Amino acid sequence: MTQTIRIINPNSNAAVTDSMSAALDPLRRNGGPSLDCVTLADGPFGIESEADSIRVAPLLADWMREDNEADAFVIACYSDPGLHMCREATDRPVFGIAECALATALTRGGTFGVISILANSVARHRRHLQERLLHPRCAGDRPLGLSVAEVEGGADTFARMKKVGAQLRDEDGAEVIIMGCAGMARHRAPLEASLGIPVIDPTQAAACIAIGTLAVAV
Amino acid sequence: MTQTIRIINPNSNAAVTDSMSAALDPLRRNGGPSLDCVTLADGPFGIESEADSIRVAPLLADWMREDNEADAFVIACYSDPGLHMCREATDRPVFGIAECALATALTRGGTFGVISILANSVARHRRHLQERLLHPRCAGDRPLGLSVAEVEGGADTFARMKKVGAQLRDEDGAEVIIMGCAGMARHRAPLEASLGIPVIDPTQAAACIAIGTLAVAV
Amino acid sequence: MTQTIRIINPNSNAAVTDSMSAALDPLRRNGGPSLDCVTLADGPFGIESEADSIRVAPLLADWMREDNEADAFVIACYSDPGLHMCREATDRPVFGIAECALATALTRGGTFGVISILANSVARHRRHLQERLLHPRCAGDRPLGLSVAEVEGGADTFARMKKVGAQLRDEDGAEVIIMGCAGMARHRAPLEASLGIPVIDPTQAAACIAIGTLAVAV
Amino acid sequence: MTQTIRIINPNSNAAVTDSMSAALDPLRRNGGPSLDCVTLADGPFGIESEADSIRVAPLLADWMREDNEADAFVIACYSDPGLHMCREATDRPVFGIAECALATALTRGGTFGVISILANSVARHRRHLQERLLHPRCAGDRPLGLSVAEVEGGADTFARMKKVGAQLRDEDGAEVIIMGCAGMARHRAPLEASLGIPVIDPTQAAACIAIGTLAVAV
Amino acid sequence: MTQTIRIINPNSNAAVTDSMSAALDPLRRNGGPSLDCVTLADGPFGIESEADSIRVAPLLADWMREDNEADAFVIACYSDPGLHMCREATDRPVFGIAECALATALTRGGTFGVISILANSVARHRRHLQERLLHPRCAGDRPLGLSVAEVEGGADTFARMKKVGAQLRDEDGAEVIIMGCAGMARHRAPLEASLGIPVIDPTQAAACIAIGTLAVAV
Amino acid sequence: MTQTIRIINPNSNAAVTDSMSAALDPLRRNGGPSLDCVTLADGPFGIESEADSIRVAPLLADWMREDNEADAFVIACYSDPGLHMCREATDRPVFGIAECALATALTRGGTFGVISILANSVARHRRHLQERLLHPRCAGDRPLGLSVAEVEGGADTFARMKKVGAQLRDEDGAEVIIMGCAGMARHRAPLEASLGIPVIDPTQAAACIAIGTLAVAV
Repeated sequence: MTQTIRIINPNSNAAVTDSMSAALDPLRRNGGPSLDCVTLADGPFGIESEADSIRVAPLLADWMREDNEADAFVIACYSDPGLHMCREATDRPVFGIAECALATALTRGGTFGVISILANSVARHRRHLQERLLHPRCAGDRPLGLSVAEVEGGADTFARMKKVGAQLRDEDGAEVIIMGCAGMARHRAPLEASLGIPVIDPTQAAACIAIGTLAVAV
Repeated sequence: MTQTIRIINPNSNAAVTDSMSAALDPLRRNGGPSLDCVTLADGPFGIESEADSIRVAPLLADWMREDNEADAFVIACYSDPGLHMCREATDRPVFGIAECALATALTRGGTFGVISILANSVARHRRHLQERLLHPRCAGDRPLGLSVAEVEGGADTFARMKKVGAQLRDEDGAEVIIMGCAGMARHRAPLEASLGIPVIDPTQAAACIAIGTLAVAV
Repeated sequence: MTQTIRIINPNSNAAVTDSMSAALDPLRRNGGPSLDCVTLADGPFGIESEADSIRVAPLLADWMREDNEADAFVIACYSDPGLHMCREATDRPVFGIAECALATALTRGGTFGVISILANSVARHRRHLQERLLHPRCAGDRPLGLSVAEVEGGADTFARMKKVGAQLRDEDGAEVIIMGCAGMARHRAPLEASLGIPVIDPTQAAACIAIGTLAVAV
Repeated sequence: MTQTIRIINPNSNAAVTDSMSAALDPLRRNGGPSLDCVTLADGPFGIESEADSIRVAPLLADWMREDNEADAFVIACYSDPGLHMCREATDRPVFGIAECALATALTRGGTFGVISILANSVARHRRHLQERLLHPRCAGDRPLGLSVAEVEGGADTFARMKKVGAQLRDEDGAEVIIMGCAGMARHRAPLEASLGIPVIDPTQAAACIAIGTLAVAV
Repeated sequence: MTQTIRIINPNSNAAVTDSMSAALDPLRRNGGPSLDCVTLADGPFGIESEADSIRVAPLLADWMREDNEADAFVIACYSDPGLHMCREATDRPVFGIAECALATALTRGGTFGVISILANSVARHRRHLQERLLHPRCAGDRPLGLSVAEVEGGADTFARMKKVGAQLRDEDGAEVIIMGCAGMARHRAPLEASLGIPVIDPTQAAACIAIGTLAVAV
Repeated sequence: MTQTIRIINPNSNAAVTDSMSAALDPLRRNGGPSLDCVTLADGPFGIESEADSIRVAPLLADWMREDNEADAFVIACYSDPGLHMCREATDRPVFGIAECALATALTRGGTFGVISILANSVARHRRHLQERLLHPRCAGDRPLGLSVAEVEGGADTFARMKKVGAQLRDEDGAEVIIMGCAGMARHRAPLEASLGIPVIDPTQAAACIAIGTLAVAV
């Protein structure tokens, strides 16, 4: 029977869901787990504050409690909202895309840099990094100055990402770049080509670790 | 065209290669990357010392330099032999299974424990952990007192793994267990069932991260 | 005009509020700030999980947004629920009693130990400690195995606290003890007498730091 | 009976004592502990070196040994001279204002910056920070280039403090400012107003923690 | 002209001076620096507290200021009393034997253990270790329960050192042993023979680093 | 009988061997250990990559296994190639000059800076620093942009070292400078004179620690 990895976009911006889902296409295989991206209809249009992050947590936990079909869950927002609450709510594996992106970045170079959406994301990310004791590997975290919706749909998102990515690489010494928002998914390949160093899409990173978690030989 | 992830067992024990390859079966999909496990014929029968680890490094780098077909490489030994030498030798991504197992463990719990093969593995692992600054997340590293070959083929390997795993969980506080040898691959599912906490097979962990690295939408 | 420090017990157990308020009596002075302890009527009867901690966060932020009278706020639960959300919600100072207890403990000895309520508190506390990078100063965190209500009203609470406190001091090397629940407030003096090392009541610790924050000479 | 917190200015500059005492006025309350600031007549005119710091230590310990009236002591110099020697000399609580300022800063933001008096203070502070393992929270430590006496009485002290405080905030990323000398006490409110982030007066910070330490309900 | 390294025993126990001087004999060579061990006549009979450590600091600084002949100084007490005050007092190199022993231990193994004299030494050592950020390499610090004089002259000193050294090696995992008192010097060789792991005599360690510092080719 | 410390230059550039040997002259004494510098004839002309570092490791271990005369060994290359492999190969003490230089630097100041040869040395050094957990003491590591041979024989080596050393001191805050290549040995004295802060020659540092290790009174 096909396994299901439920990937929940906790904001209600379906364009973000579509974008991250498209980026997962190369990971979808016949016989492999379903990588099912869904939108949390009651979430805010973007998760851009600690308040947004906390308000969606119970919605995510409720979803997981009621979703009997999924074999694993991915919380597809770079703030990893509700990660520990959801892990209390279900015995099935729950992944946060930020945590998985950080973990993946550790395998690609000695230091990483994060492209964030807004200036206020940086202190929130720092708390999460420190909570995981991964801060010594972080070379920098720089914001684009764009909301989630602007990141997803804005005309100059990629130009800004290139500029900020180059600053992380050249001024901060980052050897790997993490795209710090699920809405940046489609820019991974061109950004990698432009910067010449590995670029991590957090939703892909989480999907792969989830796939491995379910990969138990029968 | 199919992508190839070359997974090199740097010891010459083909039973270990077979065992790790079997554990990757659930990750093999039509259209997905080939997960091609090969044996380094000139490697020692087990990598059980710093000397073993260093002696195989140039062999691995030579392989990668000559292998024009692979899209990414995995060094399938928990000592990550030659990891940085290989990264100098090729521009294609190179993964060490220990590094990938550690990264993956970070996404499954707050602390991890490592089941090692021999007592002398522990100091080597500690140096690698510290080099990556992940030592604050390690609850313990305990040896089985078995060589690679004994781990692979021994009758009481699983019994010992259960005992050591329980010590890591109960005495050291590990929330996740890493199987610290590619030859332990087949024990993941029963060990997870026995211990009731996540168990990481390092070769699976590396294969998944490698798959994600190659997963660029076209 | 009198300054007001609003000290919010985020659980709905009024006996806990009364107990913490009594412990603040020695800090109440004519002309000094009002130390006004209130109960969050809609909170759970005890905050004993990540879920409890997250669910009260918006209630606390709402309170602060609507409370125009208070000059500073104290969140009187050792999980510091909603601390960063509340700091987004108001420009007035917001204190968490755990954060203040940790800070205060640093001034009384080289290492501290925490008496927690339940086994599941320990991992939550560890995340908070690490987020603040204070974990290297923590000698141990040991649970009583009691709920908030049992801690507050239980007959053998003090006996258990003495036992756990002695373990933290003797086995873990703690030089200072933090009482890890607002409901333990009345036991500070006898516990200090029994153990012979400093004991921190987190609500007192936070009230004092809040008083200092408001103490600007006119 | 009234409790007494003896706050000892270890330098012999009475103007510094007066200045810190004035800053404690908002913390003095009927029925509350006496916050009694005294000058160490035999101390140097300013503590501006390791030598100064060591030479006053025995004088402070002698004072505490002979002072039977005080319930707690505060060493009111940002070098915390003789802190551990004094703690050996008396069983009553002894606080260092630097240690208390650091602790208090941790409750107001993620990182702090220190305004020091002289360039040679910085290495001394770094040793103290590291001894306490709080260095990862320090964003910067910048000197004014003024002696203690100049800080206390100089015409342009505040102008320099504003400039250095802004550098700590803007270039180093400090979210909280610690005034690194007891003689800066009167500048807390205007500096806070100017910089828009919390400013810690170390003597106030220590007085508040000392008050809490003595606040045992009867 | 012969160089002089002045090695100052800051306690007034001449037997300790003789003992450390004897241990330096294998380092004394024709044409090499004079390793001149002197006794601080006004020092306490043993440095066994923070107070002792602070009280000798000015005496050491005075000595160095007045000693025009020495090319470098060693403070031969494992508390490194007055190290930073002495470095202020002279431009010539000043070494602390604890700091040099710690540094040397780092070159002999992954972790070290310290044999201390008294229980109260341990917290003092911990502060010094943390100040140098070397605490992550320390496996343990265990006291003999002997004063300096008892260590020097006691009949069962070596028996206790063997026992404590074995505990550090076997229970704490120390790979190198530091003898935490200058008065233990004569036990290095037999202790190394007994334990089978490297043993560091701190005075020897400092003398060697001092010799290297002066070794500038002409 | 004279003791022998075999100091092996793992590159085949005899000029480097001569240069380091000359720098050891002030440490050679009648009756003292022989400081015998030898060239690894089969080594590369310079060790300038991870590959070079790994390829010489077995040669070094073989040498030590066959060399029955030496009492201790020094691996005289700042990459410490084969350090742990050699320690497996012999029970006699083996020192790496980088490890010894780092240890020695800790005794001369609070922070150190490293003058490296090539840009690609920096990441390799960072891994070694982190493996030893000494990275928090490193203020900076800056390359000259010269190969080993150019460092040894180049006309402007010293001019570049002065410039890079001044940057480490002034921009990075290094209080001690480590010369990060055995071929820089002759520049220690003039560089120290030019910069006004301690300069460590790693081969001297290792020789001194090796001398101390062998200095057991008979």
